[in-house]
Amino acid sequence: MTSINLNADMGESYGRFEVGNDAGLMSVIKSASIACGFHAGDPTVMADAVALAKASSVSIGAHPGFNDLWGFGRREIRMNARDLEYMVAYQLGALAGIAHGAGERVTHVKPHGSLNNMAHDDLEVALAIGRAIRSVDRELIFVANACSKMVEAGRALDLRVAEEAYVDRTYGDSGKMTSRREPDAMITDPEVAIRQVLSFIEAGALISRSGKRIPTRIHTFCVHGDEPTGVKVATAVRAALERQGIDVVTLPEMSL
Amino acid sequence: MTSINLNADMGESYGRFEVGNDAGLMSVIKSASIACGFHAGDPTVMADAVALAKASSVSIGAHPGFNDLWGFGRREIRMNARDLEYMVAYQLGALAGIAHGAGERVTHVKPHGSLNNMAHDDLEVALAIGRAIRSVDRELIFVANACSKMVEAGRALDLRVAEEAYVDRTYGDSGKMTSRREPDAMITDPEVAIRQVLSFIEAGALISRSGKRIPTRIHTFCVHGDEPTGVKVATAVRAALERQGIDVVTLPEMSL
Amino acid sequence: MTSINLNADMGESYGRFEVGNDAGLMSVIKSASIACGFHAGDPTVMADAVALAKASSVSIGAHPGFNDLWGFGRREIRMNARDLEYMVAYQLGALAGIAHGAGERVTHVKPHGSLNNMAHDDLEVALAIGRAIRSVDRELIFVANACSKMVEAGRALDLRVAEEAYVDRTYGDSGKMTSRREPDAMITDPEVAIRQVLSFIEAGALISRSGKRIPTRIHTFCVHGDEPTGVKVATAVRAALERQGIDVVTLPEMSL
Amino acid sequence: MTSINLNADMGESYGRFEVGNDAGLMSVIKSASIACGFHAGDPTVMADAVALAKASSVSIGAHPGFNDLWGFGRREIRMNARDLEYMVAYQLGALAGIAHGAGERVTHVKPHGSLNNMAHDDLEVALAIGRAIRSVDRELIFVANACSKMVEAGRALDLRVAEEAYVDRTYGDSGKMTSRREPDAMITDPEVAIRQVLSFIEAGALISRSGKRIPTRIHTFCVHGDEPTGVKVATAVRAALERQGIDVVTLPEMSL
Repeated sequence: MTSINLNADMGESYGRFEVGNDAGLMSVIKSASIACGFHAGDPTVMADAVALAKASSVSIGAHPGFNDLWGFGRREIRMNARDLEYMVAYQLGALAGIAHGAGERVTHVKPHGSLNNMAHDDLEVALAIGRAIRSVDRELIFVANACSKMVEAGRALDLRVAEEAYVDRTYGDSGKMTSRREPDAMITDPEVAIRQVLSFIEAGALISRSGKRIPTRIHTFCVHGDEPTGVKVATAVRAALERQGIDVVTLPEMSL
Repeated sequence: MTSINLNADMGESYGRFEVGNDAGLMSVIKSASIACGFHAGDPTVMADAVALAKASSVSIGAHPGFNDLWGFGRREIRMNARDLEYMVAYQLGALAGIAHGAGERVTHVKPHGSLNNMAHDDLEVALAIGRAIRSVDRELIFVANACSKMVEAGRALDLRVAEEAYVDRTYGDSGKMTSRREPDAMITDPEVAIRQVLSFIEAGALISRSGKRIPTRIHTFCVHGDEPTGVKVATAVRAALERQGIDVVTLPEMSL
Repeated sequence: MTSINLNADMGESYGRFEVGNDAGLMSVIKSASIACGFHAGDPTVMADAVALAKASSVSIGAHPGFNDLWGFGRREIRMNARDLEYMVAYQLGALAGIAHGAGERVTHVKPHGSLNNMAHDDLEVALAIGRAIRSVDRELIFVANACSKMVEAGRALDLRVAEEAYVDRTYGDSGKMTSRREPDAMITDPEVAIRQVLSFIEAGALISRSGKRIPTRIHTFCVHGDEPTGVKVATAVRAALERQGIDVVTLPEMSL
Repeated sequence: MTSINLNADMGESYGRFEVGNDAGLMSVIKSASIACGFHAGDPTVMADAVALAKASSVSIGAHPGFNDLWGFGRREIRMNARDLEYMVAYQLGALAGIAHGAGERVTHVKPHGSLNNMAHDDLEVALAIGRAIRSVDRELIFVANACSKMVEAGRALDLRVAEEAYVDRTYGDSGKMTSRREPDAMITDPEVAIRQVLSFIEAGALISRSGKRIPTRIHTFCVHGDEPTGVKVATAVRAALERQGIDVVTLPEMSL
């Protein structure tokens, strides 16, 4: 492996409600997934996140979520496939409109929160998201949890798929992230995060807490901006990757 | 005058909340202004309206409004110009995303309700809308109330402007529509509507209730689908226009 | 049995979005479950529904639902028990505030849509609703699907429980209503509805489509106002009950 | 003067969106105005704020605002008087429902943001709020900007009125607060805040930036929790009041 992407969620404030540390993280990552107004991110916050990404040479993606500000998109909502598809297409279009005003293009899509979790296991949900992506712009890269139904859906729909692992989340033996409700879900120690990232790359696999290997390609690693340790962890991981001679590049620069 | 456009607002249902008579009106008009989710129109309703317009060879426009389902976008909301601009850009992008999935393009923009009323008189509001249009797609036609600040804003921003009058609304001496709170605001008699349309065309002017002429070009006439008489009035007006030898065409077919 | 209650959902419009036939149904029923602003029912619609109930000597209940206007409260949303409890308490209080202004009291609570369906089977959900009821006013009657966990939760919390069956919905062998997605979920023929109601009363049981009897008390029958046949069905059922010498009374008039 | 109230806005977080410093301020003030879900404050945040107020022996009030999370209730929205009245009654009832669950009573009402600003000058708005208060509970204390139409409306409706001045906001010659858009709107220096509070009390008047005196009673002073300096300023003011031998008490303990 000679190149990899680092991505993070951005633009998750809403009006006066401020979340995350966009400015701190933007200089460390290479691709930003920007909330699209349903779980977070009002139109002005979106425009600010796009401008910040542009100024930082960070590629822009859409981060669509459920229509649920109170739950921050972290509640499971059971929608029919049609509503789900158009809900995602709507959000992709909205961000594309905002980005166009800054002379930027949206180049990837990463589902948020419970939408992402549901799509991990449920092919119908993953396909609805994939159809939305294909209908709005078939060049968009579908950022999909490694070893998930999202990868399968993206391939079935002939989309470009970037397989993703997390820098700062532990994994279970199924290849799914440990739930945030469990105590060891998050990795906050930069050294532990570096070890996880380098071991995944070396193994060509996710490695669970119990040591199980689940083979997969990994095109992009995600870091979390809403953790107090996020910037420190991300900075350490990026430096470690570069010490290994691995280029940290934007998603459109990856060969997928 | 050899050609004119007829437009109507569409897609103003929301989930199970049904409004208007899209199917009835779509065969009479040539351009549809589709609500974009803020005052009405969920993503699936938007997709259905786009499909119906496509099947009827009706051109598609965005009908952005304030973020106010309860008030149906008919309450005045005082926003700063930046929030206003991005709020409109967001909605234009969202509809473009949905339309792209149906192989359609959005070709015009018409503000809804209080946003339209405020932009009539307030150049700052009209310019914010115009900047949003220009930033998302500078080919979009800005449908602007005849004799309003919207026309001025559109011209100042070098946008294509379609000047609009109403088939079924009366006018005051300022060239502004009579408020819906007044009893004679709406025209429900097809013969009266026909007389208004033909007299406006012949005079090259709006003609107020008191008989005052306010000279203006008119590129498009709007009909209302939410009135019970809407389809009857629109059908009668279209027939009358065709009897006069005036082609009823889509907005992109008009020379602006 | 000498008395029974008839109830219906009311106040499910939202601003200009009109739903149901409150005026038509209010003279037939004796208790109204009024939407509380989350799935439907803005504050003014709530006040209008309260006034109409008062004028019709119909007792007033709260009809809390998920925070989901788009889905009309018919999408399953997985919330934690604390959020769920306070979401319901909030809605009960809101309606109590509106009702107090009309000199009325809220006397029952009936969950709406997916919240009702989830509480049918899931004791945790049913208990969260029950705790909300108890915390706001322990005299409130919990209208609970017959043969559901709601009955169990209400009893466990020492609430007054009214067991409910539907006039116009068929039942499966589990004692749960047939899903609206199945073709024979709704009963639209008044004669069939009358037969269902009288047979349930006579049997002291729900009787499923296949003929299975699930014994239960029934204190109240629900009719649906949003079906075109709703008023006709409800009127026929009420007349049939009265012909049998059964008084149709408000929920607070029932002995529970 | 032997006693005065100190109040602050509380419970203005929303789900994961955190605002303010409730815990820090609660030990300094004696009355809390709790957001009611429309501009901020979800049901669980409301319950947490009520519990914190109870534990701190702080009296509880409702802080109703416009239906505008994005704008945090700081955008002017023009509603008709009926919608406005029921919108406020709804929020008062909702908080009362939540408070009842904690064994607490709501004892005052203070409008938020633009609703407060509009009611300052516009008697129709102030009366609609007053009617809502009277309809839900006529014992509720209406916290009204000193020298505003709110005082007039509260008196006309025979409500208990607490006249309010701000610890940390400067005043214009009209007796209205300096707009937040102007640079010297906020007072962040504790010594300046102490001087303002003591001079207002001694003068029996608001004193504007230019030195003009506008005579008024003052029953309560408001401090802002969302400013970084809020707790420091409030603590200093409370200590200065107590050094003057003035008791700092809850609103229900004031004689109004």
